[in-house]
Amino acid sequence: MRTYKLTVAYDGTNYQGWQRQTSTDRTIQGILENILSEKIGMFTEVDGSGRTDAGVHAKGQVVSVVLPGKVEESFFLSDVNKSLPDDIRILKSELVKNGFHARKSAIGKRYEYYIDTGEKADVFSRRYSYHFPRELDVSVMRMAASYLRGEHDFSGYTDKKDDTSKKRTIYGIEIQEISDGIDEGGKSRGRVVITYNGTGFLYHMVRILTGTLLEVGVHERSVESVKDALESGARSQAGFLAPAQGLFLKEVYYE
Amino acid sequence: MRTYKLTVAYDGTNYQGWQRQTSTDRTIQGILENILSEKIGMFTEVDGSGRTDAGVHAKGQVVSVVLPGKVEESFFLSDVNKSLPDDIRILKSELVKNGFHARKSAIGKRYEYYIDTGEKADVFSRRYSYHFPRELDVSVMRMAASYLRGEHDFSGYTDKKDDTSKKRTIYGIEIQEISDGIDEGGKSRGRVVITYNGTGFLYHMVRILTGTLLEVGVHERSVESVKDALESGARSQAGFLAPAQGLFLKEVYYE
Repeated sequence: MRTYKLTVAYDGTNYQGWQRQTSTDRTIQGILENILSEKIGMFTEVDGSGRTDAGVHAKGQVVSVVLPGKVEESFFLSDVNKSLPDDIRILKSELVKNGFHARKSAIGKRYEYYIDTGEKADVFSRRYSYHFPRELDVSVMRMAASYLRGEHDFSGYTDKKDDTSKKRTIYGIEIQEISDGIDEGGKSRGRVVITYNGTGFLYHMVRILTGTLLEVGVHERSVESVKDALESGARSQAGFLAPAQGLFLKEVYYE
Repeated sequence: MRTYKLTVAYDGTNYQGWQRQTSTDRTIQGILENILSEKIGMFTEVDGSGRTDAGVHAKGQVVSVVLPGKVEESFFLSDVNKSLPDDIRILKSELVKNGFHARKSAIGKRYEYYIDTGEKADVFSRRYSYHFPRELDVSVMRMAASYLRGEHDFSGYTDKKDDTSKKRTIYGIEIQEISDGIDEGGKSRGRVVITYNGTGFLYHMVRILTGTLLEVGVHERSVESVKDALESGARSQAGFLAPAQGLFLKEVYYE
């Protein structure tokens, strides 16, 4: 028995998310499992570090898979990649200790959210960013982000409604402005990237945090309201759910 | 009668090129003309600065259109953009002197060609670059490019076979290496952008120039062979036709 750790990138545009579903073939897990099962000759399960929603991308999803024996070095990077659609790619494969599990062994994650603030949506990044054509006051967004850092109960910032713990730790939220120069209309074509580092994130959490920070950035909510939603735990006090296409799972951390 | 100059961006992936065709609705010109004709209430022709092939992109195609009268300022940027598919966008509209013609008035053009030299194709730029996973010797490519500068007969560097003049002037070819950092495999994930400035470019010319420079860059052809193909005018002496998806019409120049 051998355990492999795979680092996988995918363009989530055409998929119904990570998790295998019986109702559709368009899931990343489903496609990986089907291809591996066929090549290995028996049903082969793959475990992701977490689910990504429909339309969410990954630059560094981590996947673990247990095989009956060792495979050639080129197996994942060459054979399996050749069979995968060109919007899913295994970037790295490592033979790891048995017992490693992409989700259970993970100690943290990094997500990136891309916002296109240009007046007109950029045709080349429309699949990979959220077009929000408004001026953002990044300094108040950074102040709001500082309230979110640390260990909190994030009940107000998730759409998951059950009685499991909503306690998570956010190590840091960075808000970066990237200027792509001046666009045709003479305005600076802006791009804002929000990076989230933390122990783990609840269902919709990164997208709700982003929607909330965007509302702060356009002065539609106060910096303090971010703290209020944290303390009350009421979803209705947090901001809107930012769309999936701006979100990337960038990296998963392990010991 | 009013003449408008429009600057248009498009993702060419899903189109059969710029030029209207009777056999398909999937052309940029066809779509623009249909939408304008419907809004104006009469057949409205648009002229592009030049044709782009199937799959080629534009960041700054220029289009001229003659309308019976003046339209609202918001007409193109708001009304027309709303009706366009989201992979075609009018970035700018200007009322210009009658007589202006996007192709006939143009005095130069700038094209960019994007090459992804990473070992594994980047899933997020696969639609917008050519995956050529080999090490490029950029210094010999630059030497080869220097032979191409200036006024030459580019018969060897086009697939256009007729008796019109093949004389064109290339003002400059810049070859730029962009490092996206280190990829998962520990190798630097490379990207090379080749920028072409010139009076105009023949059918397939930028793509054949690119294919030729790439062959030089991997030492499959000599620097001097670039000059030989220029002097002989034989297409067979030039390099391969680099694929459409790496090519962008970046800018069109006017007096």
